[in-house]
Amino acid sequence: MPVRPIPEATVARLPVYLRVLLEMAERGLKTVSSNGLAEATGVNPAKVRKDLSYLGTYGTRGVGYDVEYLTFQVRRVLGLEQIWPVAIVGAGNLGRALANHKGFAERGLRIVALLDSNSRRIGQKVGGLLIEPVEELDRVVKEREVAIAVIATPASVAQEIAERLVGAGVTSLLNFAPTLINVPAGVSVRSVDLAVELQILSYYEERRTAGRS
Amino acid sequence: MPVRPIPEATVARLPVYLRVLLEMAERGLKTVSSNGLAEATGVNPAKVRKDLSYLGTYGTRGVGYDVEYLTFQVRRVLGLEQIWPVAIVGAGNLGRALANHKGFAERGLRIVALLDSNSRRIGQKVGGLLIEPVEELDRVVKEREVAIAVIATPASVAQEIAERLVGAGVTSLLNFAPTLINVPAGVSVRSVDLAVELQILSYYEERRTAGRS
Repeated sequence: MPVRPIPEATVARLPVYLRVLLEMAERGLKTVSSNGLAEATGVNPAKVRKDLSYLGTYGTRGVGYDVEYLTFQVRRVLGLEQIWPVAIVGAGNLGRALANHKGFAERGLRIVALLDSNSRRIGQKVGGLLIEPVEELDRVVKEREVAIAVIATPASVAQEIAERLVGAGVTSLLNFAPTLINVPAGVSVRSVDLAVELQILSYYEERRTAGRS
Repeated sequence: MPVRPIPEATVARLPVYLRVLLEMAERGLKTVSSNGLAEATGVNPAKVRKDLSYLGTYGTRGVGYDVEYLTFQVRRVLGLEQIWPVAIVGAGNLGRALANHKGFAERGLRIVALLDSNSRRIGQKVGGLLIEPVEELDRVVKEREVAIAVIATPASVAQEIAERLVGAGVTSLLNFAPTLINVPAGVSVRSVDLAVELQILSYYEERRTAGRS
């Protein structure tokens, strides 16, 4: 357990360090400097050192961090020593992309359910999972002890699905529907809006074009 | 054109305001207060006011912001008065999900190409687009004046694809492959790693569980 709460921005970078550390271990690296981690993640070196200091780890001057031990620490702080059962609601292209995603398992996540309301989808298999009817949501969440759920439905039903998930006991939601979801205090929501990401790029593209003319 | 550069965090929130403003306009709202915008976006009211001040707009005391004019301003600053041609490389589930995404058009984005290396996918139709061979990348980017490209390929080929895109003249990349992409200065990259989003939730889930025990 971390001694003190870790700032949100640091938490958001820890999985990125973890991904890089796993790649380094695979390549046989034993130690890594903060500069090495900085370069591999695109985070600046001072920030890397500050982030890792929250794990109570400071590396060894001239040697750097032990890759294996640092991996262990990041995994522990992120709660990835256990496997989290994840349910996906919505088996459209995005839900399928997530269900098929390689590398969730090694990163502490296991997709245990893929639910949809469309009867033509129900019973199909995606990434080893059977698509189940969304009516079963409550039972599935309880029986499989789902802690984290992904909302990959159309925006129009996202709030309703969020409420059903929270009602069934889910306390962390990852929302891909392009709409704001309201949840009770104590429930975490992260949102990814694909159009928003593209529009942020369009801002920089616009400035670049303006600079040229 | 904005008079001064806008902080990155503000740029990232502008598309979220825009989404909410479009919803409000659809419901017939003429004006909105900063508190109203704050509630609809989950951003705190002081931050909303500060963000919008970068657009040179301050609202009217007791009345708020004019929805139509604010929408116009946000769109202009984001460079969405023009339509940006977007290419997607990788026509797996994620690439298809993006190609099928409703509502890109009204938000200033038009998917003009979907490329893949898999001969079984080439020639299939997704969301009105024909999947084309990735060998055509250079020609497609130039002919269709692609400014923004989405990398929805496996991690192993993401860097190579990024280089080909940049070589063909693309200056903004949205990377979904779970790997860091190196690009020359002057090229913008945003990364979305789906496993990272889930791992961030697992941190909060872990703390919640720890608090219970």
